[in-house]
Amino acid sequence: MQLKGNLLIGQSGGPTPVINASLAGVLGEAKKMPEIERIYGMKQGIEGALKRDLHDLTDEPDDLVDKLTYTPASVLGSCRHQLTKDEEYESLLELFADYNIRYFVYIGGNDSMDTCHKISRLTRERGYDMRAIGVPKTVDNDLPETDHCPGYGSAARFVALSTVESGRDLEAMQTFEDVAIFEIMGRHTGWLVGSSALGKRCEADAPHLIYMPERVFNEEKFVQDVKAIHDKLGYVYVALSEGVRDTDGEFIGAKDARVDSFGHTAISFGTGPGVYLCKLLGTRLGLKARCNRPGTIQRSMTSVASSSDVEEAFMVGRKAMQLFAGGVSDVMVTLDRSDGTGYECTAGQVPLEAVANIEKFLPEHFINKEGNFVTQEFIDYCMPLIGDPIPDYARIGQGR
Amino acid sequence: MQLKGNLLIGQSGGPTPVINASLAGVLGEAKKMPEIERIYGMKQGIEGALKRDLHDLTDEPDDLVDKLTYTPASVLGSCRHQLTKDEEYESLLELFADYNIRYFVYIGGNDSMDTCHKISRLTRERGYDMRAIGVPKTVDNDLPETDHCPGYGSAARFVALSTVESGRDLEAMQTFEDVAIFEIMGRHTGWLVGSSALGKRCEADAPHLIYMPERVFNEEKFVQDVKAIHDKLGYVYVALSEGVRDTDGEFIGAKDARVDSFGHTAISFGTGPGVYLCKLLGTRLGLKARCNRPGTIQRSMTSVASSSDVEEAFMVGRKAMQLFAGGVSDVMVTLDRSDGTGYECTAGQVPLEAVANIEKFLPEHFINKEGNFVTQEFIDYCMPLIGDPIPDYARIGQGR
Repeated sequence: MQLKGNLLIGQSGGPTPVINASLAGVLGEAKKMPEIERIYGMKQGIEGALKRDLHDLTDEPDDLVDKLTYTPASVLGSCRHQLTKDEEYESLLELFADYNIRYFVYIGGNDSMDTCHKISRLTRERGYDMRAIGVPKTVDNDLPETDHCPGYGSAARFVALSTVESGRDLEAMQTFEDVAIFEIMGRHTGWLVGSSALGKRCEADAPHLIYMPERVFNEEKFVQDVKAIHDKLGYVYVALSEGVRDTDGEFIGAKDARVDSFGHTAISFGTGPGVYLCKLLGTRLGLKARCNRPGTIQRSMTSVASSSDVEEAFMVGRKAMQLFAGGVSDVMVTLDRSDGTGYECTAGQVPLEAVANIEKFLPEHFINKEGNFVTQEFIDYCMPLIGDPIPDYARIGQGR
Repeated sequence: MQLKGNLLIGQSGGPTPVINASLAGVLGEAKKMPEIERIYGMKQGIEGALKRDLHDLTDEPDDLVDKLTYTPASVLGSCRHQLTKDEEYESLLELFADYNIRYFVYIGGNDSMDTCHKISRLTRERGYDMRAIGVPKTVDNDLPETDHCPGYGSAARFVALSTVESGRDLEAMQTFEDVAIFEIMGRHTGWLVGSSALGKRCEADAPHLIYMPERVFNEEKFVQDVKAIHDKLGYVYVALSEGVRDTDGEFIGAKDARVDSFGHTAISFGTGPGVYLCKLLGTRLGLKARCNRPGTIQRSMTSVASSSDVEEAFMVGRKAMQLFAGGVSDVMVTLDRSDGTGYECTAGQVPLEAVANIEKFLPEHFINKEGNFVTQEFIDYCMPLIGDPIPDYARIGQGR
């Protein structure tokens, strides 16, 4: 059963605050396994593998594992690269043979699980004896077959804290400004924007409205939603997914994202829906609206990482190596929540085939009927993932 | 010497993560002072005083003081209101008499110190026996006569952490994106944008360029600066003040901030310079650039507050009450840094007249010759203000 050889590991896709904690879990365990001789890290994900641009991690100092648990982003470098060409596969097979790679770990999201699965299939078809395991990570939380994804809890913690905290800012400034729109990551799914609700304790607290990509965004309905809250409270805090679209499937306010002379269309590089909707509220309702758009800050702040997320990210990395030791291959590690009353989570596995390229959307029962907030069920699902409780901030005149 | 009566306290201007800690310092001390009978808080700053819209804080539970030290924004409510009309002054005098206000504390920035000074002068001129003290707060750090301002250290900590952490995100994604621009608060001064440098340990770390309002912003020079760094590193992280202006004194990229049909011109409510410059880099250099613009999040995150800032904010609030007890009036509390080697700071005082409406700019020796970074002297000045050290994050291949 013991397959002797080297380990190749890569990180792929958008970074998270804890993707290095998964790397730490892999490294910590790999160093204990006698069958693993050398450990190589891909520089910039699979692109580094294709270019043979590798870090030799075998002799890194022992404190690296500990440091990685609080180091932001992907320390090996990352990429967005889908394997399509035949020569890429040939190049990888040659690399594996030349470096005696017998263990392959790819830490990433949907696309990366597809990459990992393709590589696993390739080596099997070509009779090259190598085990491949995918380790999940994504702040989008959109991988299927796992209760949640490492990385999500920390980004959700940032979103939850910064929403309720900057909500207090708007509440304090309500005689000067009316609306704050917090534009939150998640192009296709509302998991992250939904987490904005986790610090809310009363009607006055932010957010007051949440818009998710799972629902068609109607500008007229939005204007009326904002007006209703403003009439009641005097200020409105909106949590808005960057990926909201109209009935034609067009991203809201993204027209200017297409004018780039080099043809870049990604909304992240344009003005985004938040500023567009702030202007709309000015024109339609005469409200002063401000857009908070922290961008990559929301997926990189290890300084506000969720403690449970860090632990679980480490656990799934370690689990990948334990699965290797048991002869397992071609799976993604999962996080399985137990059914008991308290929150408990263990690491499991699922065939890569079942997750590659599949997105998990917010289920119906996590979205309210009006499509402008999350349900209590969502909050119950999400709360254990963000670590320590959100503080109970002071309010005057409430006996607390 | 003992003047018996009531205390009126207000919070004014843009909130900070620790403005409530100053309120806590005032309340904690006021409750111990036998000459103070009741404590009133203005709802929404001086606007609440004008409308007689007050909180009675006298009988709030004892744990309020503790909770306020970690509660974001201005719990009493804030405003931006300059006293100009005669009837406003008359209305305040009547309020003071009717409520037997003998102690007046206003926590705020430049404009608020002016308000406090005007009220102090008014009561003196009209023979109404009341003491007035200003307590400084501003994330902009632009009040004169104090080493620094409570609120600045916490916002600077957020900026320093989020710059170096999201810088790692860009570095990891360098094969996919080229530039991140972090748009940072401070319309007239570069104190906050400068703090972006505090987590930088090596050339690879963010930021690579810092643009402050104290220097004219030249778009051509900016493009060349970015190109030079990109040619060398392959990615560029820019810390950009929201208040950068061209040679005509016009805010960069703020033309669209003026189209609002209600005549709002504040840059906070427009697209801002960051997105504008991202587009410029796309057009001029073909680079993919993304703008991080956390907006009010950067001035409200108590969850990443600087521990020394929280302590000092509490200290200046308490000091105001101690000064009252000593018969002092018409001053602003200051933070005075001692000359010794270690960092030590005590609370002092300065006449309100010396600070009202005066802005403190970054001095020459805090800005590099090229006008695109801060100096080591600035870093030495700022570092003790942000509390715990910024973590030393892992890098591969550096023996650490």
